[in-house]
Amino acid sequence: MLSRRSGVPVPTIKYYLRENLLPAGKATARNQARYDEEHLLRLRLIRTLTGIGRLDLSSVRDLLAAIDDDDVDMAELYQTVNRRVYPEKAQIDEPDSLEQARCDASRFVAEFGWCDDPLPASHPLVHSLAALRALGCDANASFLEPMAEAAERLAVHELEIQLPAGVTNPKAVAVVRTVLFEVAFAAARRMARERQVLLQFGTTGP
Amino acid sequence: MLSRRSGVPVPTIKYYLRENLLPAGKATARNQARYDEEHLLRLRLIRTLTGIGRLDLSSVRDLLAAIDDDDVDMAELYQTVNRRVYPEKAQIDEPDSLEQARCDASRFVAEFGWCDDPLPASHPLVHSLAALRALGCDANASFLEPMAEAAERLAVHELEIQLPAGVTNPKAVAVVRTVLFEVAFAAARRMARERQVLLQFGTTGP
Repeated sequence: MLSRRSGVPVPTIKYYLRENLLPAGKATARNQARYDEEHLLRLRLIRTLTGIGRLDLSSVRDLLAAIDDDDVDMAELYQTVNRRVYPEKAQIDEPDSLEQARCDASRFVAEFGWCDDPLPASHPLVHSLAALRALGCDANASFLEPMAEAAERLAVHELEIQLPAGVTNPKAVAVVRTVLFEVAFAAARRMARERQVLLQFGTTGP
Repeated sequence: MLSRRSGVPVPTIKYYLRENLLPAGKATARNQARYDEEHLLRLRLIRTLTGIGRLDLSSVRDLLAAIDDDDVDMAELYQTVNRRVYPEKAQIDEPDSLEQARCDASRFVAEFGWCDDPLPASHPLVHSLAALRALGCDANASFLEPMAEAAERLAVHELEIQLPAGVTNPKAVAVVRTVLFEVAFAAARRMARERQVLLQFGTTGP
């Protein structure tokens, strides 16, 4: 029933039930349960996050917990979203140019009024700056500024996308909105880069 | 020797050698080999891509092969980069609103002169549009246009970053430049979103 309505295979649904991602249905008989509209919505949410959103199940579990927890407000919810959409890497070699890059990134973060606390969000920024410089690339303010401006505009734009009136769970919609925005924008970035590369380096092959 | 100069542990270097990611050194004795500057650069390249660039070894192998192959020109190299930086997902549920989204995305791709061939780059765009609409979000042209403009500006900006004069391998630098640009921009996106969320939803608990 739930499987037919959602298009999700029964074993997958059973797996979500076992993993407590999906709440149990109302038992109607020894081996049967009834699932309502809420189950369907939850199932679609999970499939959107794991499918097009490409999140792993541990991220999905974390996000669902934040959505379900009434003590988690929107600001806190977005911290969880950011942590899951941009996962961190534990082990990174420390290049020589790290100190200067850290200093530049801090100035840059402060200038845009960005908050580097409590999440070490600028960490990858520092490291990529340092790595670009270690390569001899000229990664200075003129590198960072257009990037920051684009990021600001996109963040405003993303949050302006209207959440549907009367949604039962605005937090769930906010999570999906961010995840899907990232996916759509990555596709746009890829196509834009392809076009610029073709303009700059000409066509390839026959 | 190579380990001391690069800071990479010996077992890791041996692993890269076994996996043919790093070319063998010049044998100087039964159990010794000499590694030159080129080995060091290659090792730094691998570490940058797997570390801050967060690519898996199969992506790194693919990129190194494209860098090493003289028959692969810049345009083709970037196709490999795009494929690895934005990996595809095989299994995505097909929402009802897919057809309309496909149509909108095509018009949009054509309008910006983007190329949707030979890579199915617009696939995630179509799916995220459809999924947003399935949620009731208003994902139309006014959703796509600011995203596309930002993507175009960023692509131009990325390719304008000067490759260092006299680099021995411009293709290697181009790969790292793109990968690091993505990482830095993701950090900027995250911080910008955090700031906008705080502006919109206020601060979160102590």
